[in-house]
This record gives sequence, structure tokens and C-alpha cells, in this order.
Amino acid sequence: MGASKPSNQRPENTAAPPAVVSRLSLYLRELQHLVGDGTQTTNSSQLGDRLGFTDAQVRKDLAHFGQFGHPGIGYRCDELIAEIRKILGTDRRWSVALMGVGNLGRALLGYRGFQSQGFSIAAAFDADPEKVGTVVDGITIYGLDQLPGVVAEMHIDLGMVAAPANHAQAATDLLVAAGVRGILNFAPVTLAVPPGVSLVGVDLARELEQVTFAVASRLRSGES
Amino acid sequence: MGASKPSNQRPENTAAPPAVVSRLSLYLRELQHLVGDGTQTTNSSQLGDRLGFTDAQVRKDLAHFGQFGHPGIGYRCDELIAEIRKILGTDRRWSVALMGVGNLGRALLGYRGFQSQGFSIAAAFDADPEKVGTVVDGITIYGLDQLPGVVAEMHIDLGMVAAPANHAQAATDLLVAAGVRGILNFAPVTLAVPPGVSLVGVDLARELEQVTFAVASRLRSGES
Repeated sequence: MGASKPSNQRPENTAAPPAVVSRLSLYLRELQHLVGDGTQTTNSSQLGDRLGFTDAQVRKDLAHFGQFGHPGIGYRCDELIAEIRKILGTDRRWSVALMGVGNLGRALLGYRGFQSQGFSIAAAFDADPEKVGTVVDGITIYGLDQLPGVVAEMHIDLGMVAAPANHAQAATDLLVAAGVRGILNFAPVTLAVPPGVSLVGVDLARELEQVTFAVASRLRSGES
Repeated sequence: MGASKPSNQRPENTAAPPAVVSRLSLYLRELQHLVGDGTQTTNSSQLGDRLGFTDAQVRKDLAHFGQFGHPGIGYRCDELIAEIRKILGTDRRWSVALMGVGNLGRALLGYRGFQSQGFSIAAAFDADPEKVGTVVDGITIYGLDQLPGVVAEMHIDLGMVAAPANHAQAATDLLVAAGVRGILNFAPVTLAVPPGVSLVGVDLARELEQVTFAVASRLRSGES
């Protein structure tokens, strides 16, 4: 990890638009790939090129959070990785509680993309007594009544809601009551959380719309 | 649907940044909620307020694609919904092929958020002979060798890759060879597609990073 530079942290951190935060994750992945390939330094043009953004966009996005480049060098990959992880809050590990062990919940328990970014699903919860006490992909499934105790004991800060749509708000309320600070919702419904709890919804149709936009744009412009 | 207005379609459509396209989906969902509540007109402030964006952001995003407001009225919800669907390419239905019927595939087959936005999973494909010929959530599972025939017969344009990471590229190659024009990838790997095929990757850790960013920002700013 690079040395902490408090002067880099500007107060407007919290006001960065979600789209900028989302691009930080992309920059982080690309930097991790570069380091994996043995690359030590990069610059805004190279980073932008690999992701389809302009160099100005990359610089502007990073400028929300501080000044990270070095004159004549560009960005040191390891250093920028450490800074972005600090901004994203993933310079520590996060323990996650999974609510709902249906098909989606099982898929999330087996998803390989969390662990490498600092997330570990510590425990899963389901209302079905047949599932409670079983272990899926190394994770124990607990009953809903065990949530407060397990969250406290395992220092769980985040929750993922993979419950059916009609149970998603109740699952969310249980997470909030147990003291979870941030929730990722996979159910296709809008959920309410009190101030002080962060909620991000995953809308899979929105991802598909990104695909159809690109396909429809090509059709409009006359490409096959 | 509103009347088609070709003059609204500017050539730079294809150059709209992905983040703008992603926000169009959010505006669309919000407009759909407004219409569901019986609201007929809205404006950039109201739309922005409901989503946490400034009114300037909303206007700037929409201006990428044309001029949609009416002086003294704002936006007519139905009209703007029709225009955004046209831009996103969802003013028609899309048939989707699902590759891989493991836990994630089964979750996607049961996901309620696709149908309402114009997507239908027409067929699923898996390499496991035990699964081939069975029906899950009303969708028939075919063998991989049946892909070209089924894609042609069912007029399938899009694919979703829910195969394990080590089979994701092979599944993608099969979709491309069968003539699919756009692919949504759920496997935590980077996939290659030829020019003329659109690829969007779903990175679930990225969504969690949006949550941790918000939680870490609050912690930094001293809120509990």
C-alpha cells in the first residue's frame, strides 16, 4: 500500500457522482491487470485507451479525489491502486451477509469476483428451515432470527439482498436493525433504508439496455 | 408510443458515453414509476430530485439525443418514455439466449426485471446432457449444438453468458458464430468479441464498491 497522503483527500469526496465512482472501479481493475502483466507505470491516455474513455475524462475523474500523477512518469500503478482502494473503501476487507439462498443467492455464494476485491460473504440467511444449518460453498446458512447475533459476532458491515421481491424489504429491515451500514439489492424492487445506510440497487435490465443501445446505434448508423 | 421525430436523432447518438446511457435507463424507470402513479408531465428538477442528480445533469444527458421538453410544460412522461426506449433500442422486444443453466442461469431465468423492459429469454443452453430437454421457468434448455438452429429459428439477437469463468469465452464464441449481435457477460473474466458485436460485462464487485464508497465516505466525514 502507498503511504497515506491526507492532503490528497478533498472534502468533496462524498459529492462525487455515482458515475465517477463507478469508473474508479474500472480504473482499478485495469490497473490490477497492468500490474498482473508486469507494468509499473501508466498514464491517462493508456488507461483511457484500454477502457474507451478520453485521457481528459480519466484525469477529470481522478481530480475529484486529489492529484495522483508524477511529472514525467505518469501514474505509478501500485500507488494509484492503493489510492483508489482507499477512496472506494476497499483498502480493508469487508464481511458481507447474504439474505436469501435461492438460485441467485447460491450463485452469489459461488461468485469468484468478490474475494479478489476484498469482499467475503461471511454468512448467509434464509427463512427456509430446511436450508438453515446447511453449508453452501463453505458458507453456513443461518435462520433469520440469528441475524443480529451473527452480524455482531462476525463484524459484518454489508448486506446483499437476494430474497424474492416480496420479501426484499423485510430482509432489508432486518439487516438495518442488525446494524449493517450498506446494502446491495438484487431484487427488482425499490427499497427504503433510513439515513446513514447506503443502498445500491442492481438492475439487470439496465445492463441489457446498455447492450441494446449499442446494437441499435449500429443498426441506425447503417452498419450490419 | 409518441410519433417518430427523425429531427430529434442527432448523429452523435453512437458517441454518447456509457455513463449517460446508463442514466437514460434510470430516467426511463423513474418516468415509468411516475406514469404508474398517474403523473402525466414532469421536468428536469423533479426527475433529478428523485434520482439524486441536478436538473442541469438531466438536461445535459437528454441533450445528447435531441430536444424533448415543451415550453411551459416540461416533459410529457409518455412521450419521453417512448423517445428513451427508441434511443435505448427497447421500442421493440428482444429475444435473448442464455448460456449456462447453473445457479446464476436459473436465477436469470426467474428474474422478473427483464420482461417488463422488453426482454424475453427465448431459450437456454447448457453442455450438461442431464439438463438438455428439461424446462426451467417455462424456458426449454437446449444442447450447445442446437444453438445456431434455435437462434435462427427464434430470431434471437442477444446472448447472456452465465457459464463458469473457464467456459465463458467458448460460450461467447458460439453466440457470435450463431449471429448474436450483443452479449451481456456475467462471468468474472474479460471476453473478446469481434467488431460489430457489442459486449457489456456485469462486475458485481463494482456494484459492491459503490456501496463501500458511500459507507467509507460517511465514516471519513465523521458520521456514524
